[in-house]
Formats: sequence, structure tokens, C-alpha cells
Amino acid sequence: MVVRAGVVVTGTEVLTGRVPDANGPWLAERLRLLGVDVGRIVVVGDRRDDLAEAMRFLAADHHLVITTGGLGPTADDLTAEVVAEVQGRATHLDEVLEEQITEIVAGLHAQRGWGPPGRAAAVGIRKQALVPEGAHVLAPVGTAPGLVVPPATGEGPPVVVLPGPPGELRPMWEDAVADGLVRAAVAGADELRQATVRLWGPPEAELAEVLREHEEGGGAAGFAALEVTTCLRDGELEVVTRYSPDAQPAYDALLAVLHAHFGDRVFSDDGRSVDEVVADLLRAQGLTLATAESCTAGLLAGRIADRPGSSAYLLGGFVTYADEVKTSQLGVDPDLLARVGAVSEEVAVAMARGARERLGTTLGVSVTGVAGPDGGTPEKPAGLVHVCVSREGRDEQRELRLGGSRAHVRARTVVSCLHLLRELLTTDGPV
Amino acid sequence: MVVRAGVVVTGTEVLTGRVPDANGPWLAERLRLLGVDVGRIVVVGDRRDDLAEAMRFLAADHHLVITTGGLGPTADDLTAEVVAEVQGRATHLDEVLEEQITEIVAGLHAQRGWGPPGRAAAVGIRKQALVPEGAHVLAPVGTAPGLVVPPATGEGPPVVVLPGPPGELRPMWEDAVADGLVRAAVAGADELRQATVRLWGPPEAELAEVLREHEEGGGAAGFAALEVTTCLRDGELEVVTRYSPDAQPAYDALLAVLHAHFGDRVFSDDGRSVDEVVADLLRAQGLTLATAESCTAGLLAGRIADRPGSSAYLLGGFVTYADEVKTSQLGVDPDLLARVGAVSEEVAVAMARGARERLGTTLGVSVTGVAGPDGGTPEKPAGLVHVCVSREGRDEQRELRLGGSRAHVRARTVVSCLHLLRELLTTDGPV
Repeated sequence: MVVRAGVVVTGTEVLTGRVPDANGPWLAERLRLLGVDVGRIVVVGDRRDDLAEAMRFLAADHHLVITTGGLGPTADDLTAEVVAEVQGRATHLDEVLEEQITEIVAGLHAQRGWGPPGRAAAVGIRKQALVPEGAHVLAPVGTAPGLVVPPATGEGPPVVVLPGPPGELRPMWEDAVADGLVRAAVAGADELRQATVRLWGPPEAELAEVLREHEEGGGAAGFAALEVTTCLRDGELEVVTRYSPDAQPAYDALLAVLHAHFGDRVFSDDGRSVDEVVADLLRAQGLTLATAESCTAGLLAGRIADRPGSSAYLLGGFVTYADEVKTSQLGVDPDLLARVGAVSEEVAVAMARGARERLGTTLGVSVTGVAGPDGGTPEKPAGLVHVCVSREGRDEQRELRLGGSRAHVRARTVVSCLHLLRELLTTDGPV
Repeated sequence: MVVRAGVVVTGTEVLTGRVPDANGPWLAERLRLLGVDVGRIVVVGDRRDDLAEAMRFLAADHHLVITTGGLGPTADDLTAEVVAEVQGRATHLDEVLEEQITEIVAGLHAQRGWGPPGRAAAVGIRKQALVPEGAHVLAPVGTAPGLVVPPATGEGPPVVVLPGPPGELRPMWEDAVADGLVRAAVAGADELRQATVRLWGPPEAELAEVLREHEEGGGAAGFAALEVTTCLRDGELEVVTRYSPDAQPAYDALLAVLHAHFGDRVFSDDGRSVDEVVADLLRAQGLTLATAESCTAGLLAGRIADRPGSSAYLLGGFVTYADEVKTSQLGVDPDLLARVGAVSEEVAVAMARGARERLGTTLGVSVTGVAGPDGGTPEKPAGLVHVCVSREGRDEQRELRLGGSRAHVRARTVVSCLHLLRELLTTDGPV
């Protein structure tokens, strides 16, 4: 049985794009683990009618509706009362809950060194303790309680009401899925598998043609039972497939087609990111790393250090934005800089060697380029970047010619460095 | 007149949260500049019924519906045919368009060094050239044309169909807003103003109480005509207000209340981010900067270099993850490291001074901390970070005790460094 949930994300800051929604994606993955597919996500501002319409829209063809946000103490926090209205229930003051929230708020005030909560705070607390008749209350993690609200008529899905801050929503989710109404709503959901293949290099169009030719050629197992989505990100092509257990042979066939056609360009078929692949290689081979960055200015080192435990291989690095710093800190010959310019293969190699030698690491990785939008010349336009990985006796360098914004050029460069490292660590000869 | 647009974002990769939606937010801001408010955004997967229902849902109470994505050559790209169905129109093959796309695809093939497009490609092109009767075609930027499709009945809003890749959608938007059907749909929209105030320090609850007390005190102008949304991000509190021109006095009153209550904690009321404020201060005072980062490992330097032209003040920096590197590259006394440990006020000060002296800059900024989740001790738990800004004759340091994930600790630390810089550059005495 296909069980679907709809998600209502409230908040004008999300609707107007100032804040990315952190909850919808997180819930989508949690729900998948329960075998529940997310059908639609609706983002609405803090407006009564929009919120009510969104709930009704999703209730019409989903087994479960989840709302996030709008549970605070202020007047524009409307979710609880709108859910009550949509589910056809009156609200009442839950005095035990009111007392509980009052204690939490008093604790927060004390912690911050403020006086005890005043009348304004009491109004907010009373608002947060208004509960629809017949709803189950999920204990507050912050100050806001969550709710599970069944429809008064018995017709339609229950609405699970969760707070907006991810630090409150995530712990509360455990209570929500343990709730009897929620368990009944998602009962009978089939397992929903998801697998990810990552490729470096091929354009999305090439993948589309490969898949279509295989389909038209009438391959043993068609791909119709698979939900395949692809996306291109910083030069990596991510192929994510969702399928039910009985479509496993079709997925196996798809995976074989991808390996057969793309070969080495498939760098992960077990969900690992390039960061994880590189970290595993560095660890397995007992290598150490130093960075030397000009236009990325620390983003490469910062990304390598995103992973806990990265101090096992990352010893440090250099941000050498000014040419004098390339010379003073990495030993790049000033005559070389004058002759070929900072954005050149030669300087990239000298930087990578310099970083490796100065920090005494096995590997040095360097970046020098024109991130743009200004600073380019006809010979060296914005988007031209040289990267190099150096180890004793071997320097691998690449010239990148990237388009797009400054942020895009820098992000794409960081990913290119990780792939150059990966290639160097998975091949013995020249890559 | 309040004119509202609804946005349908298609793509399973967005629905399942693997890719953040870049188009909805961008469109929301573009629309605001036309005086058009975004009422709701619906995110759907690549499924026919979900897509159709989403369009009908938004058409019911918006003046304009915009769809993004689902215009590619593959079978799961359904948007154009579903729009035709929802708007009650048959589709026909636009042969001129087919020829135009064929030329574009042939050019791409040639550019990539492939052979000419084959039969599979021709099927995809023909699909992209199917146009609803009576629709206006927006010329392709990539391979996919956009559409403006009015309802056959004349009742309801036109649907603007745009491609998913932001690099295609954004240029095409200019053509879309010049289209007569779109102009008619948004005609009469009132100006919609938006202003942003940023605070460093106060919790969201304190802001809520200040606003409520002012409202209850019956301030000269009530805030009812303002749509105020607040969000907390890396320790900064952002207050964004949308209002129509006749509510300008109410906004002015709100701004006065914020300045009166929060004083110096308001660091921007003109929309500038802390990055921009710091960059402006560095430029105006002719200062130069070097970084020395342990747990943030380059993220601070990388963020400073996000801004074009940052080479005017950022000369470079150091990622000193290993203690030996703190000593060899920054001159931190190894006895000091042994005595007080790397995560300490003393080492933070020595790092900032070392960076400044090694690179000969006016300012040095340092970070040393336990990003977690591992590596903490009872005395120095995960989340303990020391930061320092050093200039000749003055070292300002702060001890941060942060909660949350590794990513959160590091991001919050970077923002804290920017604010410490800002404070140092806006005060003469101790801050």
C-alpha cells in the first residue's frame, strides 16, 4: 500500500526565500524510512486563510498531514487554532500544560538573568496552552507543545503539528511517530527503497539518452517501476532511485547499465559523497594533507574539515590571497609570479609543493584562479582556475574553465579538487 | 490592489530535500519588485496528478501561477502537457520551434565533440516543441522553451511555465514579465516595500516581548499594517517587514522602537549583512587582515573572500589544524600549548598576533575551539571556542560556549568573529 504524507511549512521567511526550509527535507527522509512517500509540500506565510486552505488541500489526498512552525507565543503564530478549525474542533485551555510551559519560560528567564516572566509572557503562554478538543499533546522540547489532531468527523487524515525550529522538531518527531493516531495512519506502508549513484563528468543529457536507449532497446527489466531523478550539482551528477522491494531486479539492471556505460565516471554507488570517498582513501592509505588556496580562500580546507575526525589527515593549510603571501608562506618564486602570473599551471604546482613541504605532509592541494566577476583579462578570464595535487615525485594539475557566478566558480573548484584527489588516490599511473 | 502569485516547484529532488529550491525564493523577490505577493509555493514530484492538482489549487485564489521545472526532453518532464490539460487546451507541434531546438541541440553535441543528435534526441526535441494552443512561447535559453498559457475559458489566471535550471529561468523571466498576458495579470499591483533590521545578541523572545508591549501600550502607530517576520540565524536576529506605502509611518515607528530598546545591538537597518558592514569598515579605515583558524579551518577566510574585491583587505591566512602547525606557521610557543592547551584564550591571542605579524597586516583574527561532536573534555566540552581579534596594542578575545551540531558551532563561530571585528572597528575603547 502506498501511504502518502503532505507537509505544510509555515513562515513568511521561508515563503519569501530568506531562510531555506530545513524541516520539509528532513521529514521527507524520516517518512521514507517509515515507507511513507511525501506527496506535496506547501509553503505558506503566517496568514490564516492560506494556512487553512493548504491543510484542506493536502487532507484531500494524503493519509497524514504534517505542519511545521507557527506555534510560538506571538499573535502571528496561528497554526494550532487553524488546525482546530480545519479539523472541526473547539479549543480549550489545558491548565496542566499552561503550568508546564510557565515553568519552562521561568527557567529560560532565570537562565538569561532576566526578571520573572511578566504579563505579556503570560498571554503568550496561555496561547500556547490552547489545545483542540480530542487532540493528543506532544510534550514541548522548547516552549511549544506539539499536537496530533484527528478530524472531528472521523473522515480524513490526522494533522501532526510540530514546531518550526529544527532543534525542537527533530526530538519531538520521535514522540509523534509513537503516537497511536499516527501509527494507525501510516499502518500498512510498504518498504520504500532509495539508492544513490554519483557520477563525475557526464552531462545530464548523456545520462538521459543512455536511459532512453536502454528502455527502447527493451532491456530485460524495464525501468518503469523505478522513480529515477537526476540532478547536476557542482559538476557531479546524482542519480537517486526510489523503488519498492519487488522492483529490486529493475534497479540492479539500472545500476549495471550505469556501470557499463560510464565506467570510472561512476565514483559512488553506495550513497557516499566525494568527501567521504576521499576521507576513506586518505585514512586507508595513511596520508596527510596540506592546502594552499587563493580564490577559494579556505573553502577547500573548511570543507575537508566538515567531517569529524578530519584532523587525522588534514594538518593545515594556507590562504594566500596576495601574491606576496604566496612567496612568503609557500616559497613561490617571485620571478615565476612575475613571468607567468599567479593564475597559471606553474604557480599552482609551486603552491601545492610549497604547502606540502612547509607542513611536511604527504599531499599538497592548491587552487589559484579568477573567481570573478571582476579581475579577468582576455587571456585569463573570470572562471579560469588552476588546481594541483602534489605528492613526492608526482604533480597532477588541471585547468578549469568555469562559468557562472563567483560563488559557483568557487564551489565548483572545491569539488574539482576533491575529485582530483580521489583520482590521484585511486590510480597508480597518471590519471 | 493586492496581487498574488502562486508558484509550483516540480522535481522529486526538491520534494525529497536533496536539492534546495533556488527558484521559488528568487521568484518571490522578483515578484515583490513588481508589487506582487507570493501567496503559496507548492512543491511536487514529477507526477501528473500531483502537478495538475497543485496548479488547480493555486489557480483558485491567485492572479498568476508560475511553474518551474519539468520541461526537459525525458518522459518524466510533464509540465507542458499538464498545463495544457489544466488550462483546457490541446497541444500542437510547433514546427518552427522544433527546428530551433534541433539547431540548439546539434550545437551542444558539436561543442561536446559528440556525433549529431540521433533518433532518441529527436524524440525529446519533438516533445519539447509541443505547445498548448493559444499559448505564448518564450524563447529557449537552454533547450527548453517557456510558455505563457491563458485558460481556454477565460476564467482564471494565466500559467507561466519556466524551466528548472536557474541559469535558464532567470534570463527567461525578463521575457515573461514583458509578455502581455503577464502584464495584464499583475496590472494594478500596489508597491510592496520591504525593509530589514539586523540585531546581534538579543533572543527572539525578547524582541517578541518588546513588540507586544509596544502594541499593548497603544503606541502612536499600531503595527497591524506591517507584516513583520523575524528569524534567528547563527546568533543574528533578522527582522524583515513588508508593508504598503501608506504604512510607512508605522514602519518608522517600529524602527524607532527597535533602536530605542536595543541600541548598539542593532547593527544594520539598511539591509546590509554583517559581512558588508565589516567590509565597509575595513575599506574606510584602510586596514588589512590575516586569519588563523583551527576548528573553522578556512571557513572564516572563505567567507570574507565571498565578496568581490575582498583582496583589498584580506591578504591571506592560516589553517592550523594540528598543534605543530600552530607553532611552525604562527609561532605559538609549544610550552604555552602544553601548559594551557590549544583551546584557550592565550593560544587564541598568540594565533591572532602570529597571523598579523607573519603577514604584516593591521589585523589578525583567530579561532581555536572544539567543533565536536567528539574531542571534548569535561573542562573543554564540544562547543567551547576562543576567538580573538588582534591589532597593534590591543587584543580583543571572546570565549564562546555554543550548542548544536559541528556545522552549527563552526558557522556560529564565523559569524561571531565578524561581529567581534565589527565591534573592534566601531569602538575606540574596549568593546
